[in-house]
Amino acid sequence: MSDTVVVGLDVGGTSTRAVALSLAGERLGTGRGGGGNPTSHGAERAAAELLTALRGALAGVDPARVRAGVIGLAGAGRLLADPAGRAAFDQAWAQAGLRCAYAVHGDALVAYASGTAAPDGTVLIAGTGAIAAQVRDLRLDRVADGHGWLLGDAGSGFWLGREAVRRLLADLDRGTSPGPLGARVLTELLGSVEVADRPRGTVDALVQAVTRRPPVELARLAPLVVTAAVEGEPVATGLIDEAAAHLVESVSRIRPADAVEPIVLGGGLLTGDTPLAAAVRAEAERRWPDAPVRTAGDGAAAAAWLAALDLPGVTDPVALHALLVPPTA
Amino acid sequence: MSDTVVVGLDVGGTSTRAVALSLAGERLGTGRGGGGNPTSHGAERAAAELLTALRGALAGVDPARVRAGVIGLAGAGRLLADPAGRAAFDQAWAQAGLRCAYAVHGDALVAYASGTAAPDGTVLIAGTGAIAAQVRDLRLDRVADGHGWLLGDAGSGFWLGREAVRRLLADLDRGTSPGPLGARVLTELLGSVEVADRPRGTVDALVQAVTRRPPVELARLAPLVVTAAVEGEPVATGLIDEAAAHLVESVSRIRPADAVEPIVLGGGLLTGDTPLAAAVRAEAERRWPDAPVRTAGDGAAAAAWLAALDLPGVTDPVALHALLVPPTA
Repeated sequence: MSDTVVVGLDVGGTSTRAVALSLAGERLGTGRGGGGNPTSHGAERAAAELLTALRGALAGVDPARVRAGVIGLAGAGRLLADPAGRAAFDQAWAQAGLRCAYAVHGDALVAYASGTAAPDGTVLIAGTGAIAAQVRDLRLDRVADGHGWLLGDAGSGFWLGREAVRRLLADLDRGTSPGPLGARVLTELLGSVEVADRPRGTVDALVQAVTRRPPVELARLAPLVVTAAVEGEPVATGLIDEAAAHLVESVSRIRPADAVEPIVLGGGLLTGDTPLAAAVRAEAERRWPDAPVRTAGDGAAAAAWLAALDLPGVTDPVALHALLVPPTA
Repeated sequence: MSDTVVVGLDVGGTSTRAVALSLAGERLGTGRGGGGNPTSHGAERAAAELLTALRGALAGVDPARVRAGVIGLAGAGRLLADPAGRAAFDQAWAQAGLRCAYAVHGDALVAYASGTAAPDGTVLIAGTGAIAAQVRDLRLDRVADGHGWLLGDAGSGFWLGREAVRRLLADLDRGTSPGPLGARVLTELLGSVEVADRPRGTVDALVQAVTRRPPVELARLAPLVVTAAVEGEPVATGLIDEAAAHLVESVSRIRPADAVEPIVLGGGLLTGDTPLAAAVRAEAERRWPDAPVRTAGDGAAAAAWLAALDLPGVTDPVALHALLVPPTA
């Protein structure tokens, strides 16, 4: 056992992270690759980034010591259903010198496991999109939202960006001056806070500026809302509260009202000390007062922990989690 | 004067309608063409439909008697700014044998004038999209919404269709059986009311069915909401009430709280005896109790009336409206 190494990978849209850990919790190596989501980048490209990250993590490790691995990624189900994609991942795994099997899990499960060792609970992720899932026996169970920007993703980065533009357009319709958040949005989209003498000209310019890009790019306005909310801007704080209510409503679709299992918050908008994370935490603690609310942390380490659980001789998953996965709030 | 004829055209996305009227209100001819919106169909095609409709209206009329004309169409401003489009319309006008000048107005102004002769008031239009406008001296003044499906059109046919799908997805997330409206949406989008054993499979199929078409086609689900609301289905009636609140909120952005001028309701969702029209009317009468609420009617006749107003000797616009434009509710 003391010689055993596990490998975990967290494959995201902008980076791929890998870690090699001993079962005593020694961090034997880490590696990093570019964005590797097979849905958005293609399985070949994703597998290449996976290999880069794996080679980094295994630089000082005898690959024969690695007994198990887990790859966490968005769209895991689609990868597993695609023989060519699966073959590309198999090949990268072998090229890294690994002979053990590996499992593929959804990024939501890995985010969950990065925040808790509890086998049952809830994970809520808000980044560009938004999705909530119940976890049962460390497997994803029921899911809420994740319906994409056109039909869902309520409370996501896309939602925040779109609502910020909508509030600005409503102000222009009314003929009132944009507030601080509206001014930030004007500057970002039109390069100036100036409103035309005929505000409808500015309205038309804003609509055109948004509609000539892919809709999902509205999510790049979300940081403006977050920054304005940190400064106490009332429109922004109102949007943050609305977004938090949407996100918790999604959770309540799948989580019983009397549940006490942990809730893990993940995704760019809910990790770190953001006003949306604080608002969601407050609302979740109000609805489920007996449940711990945790923040997602090191996904690669959580993936390595999930890999270790299947090894013979691993009898105390909670103790192993404490050794392998860095603690979070 | 008794010999004078005026021509009006109402150019819509699905049909172009023309009428030739004497100033005594005699209906001398009507004509119809296909969809003629120059923005969506191109100015050449729009002008061809215009000519078809004009020739129908003038079949029994000496074109030398026509002294004025108005063309009402969506995107009037864009047409006037486009020399080639304007030339195509000029040519169609001349090919119909007309020697008088004509004016081009927005479809919102023509809809307004089809419901009232008052020079000042408000028009609210809800079809695939939604827009409200103030009218001053029979010219469009301030505008609210009309921001398109991505950023606005709150309470429109697109909005109703999208919300109907969102309610269904939320039911599926919760694991509850779709209600009558949800069943209609399932049948329309997936061809069956069956929900998969794993409801997420049905969720994914619905999202794919919607996202493989242009988003604006969600508006084709709006009639399902209207029909279900007529039957008293609670989700549908709730959506109709929400849509009415959005539409009236758009009006309130530009219309003073103490205004007494008429409000005209237009567009496919607000003309006719629909639950949305009734809900908007009730809400508008609550907010502006001293203002008459009217329904848009014969746009071509209203365009002809607008044309007549510029003729010498026309001294009583209200009396002329009563002669030329068929009354509506």
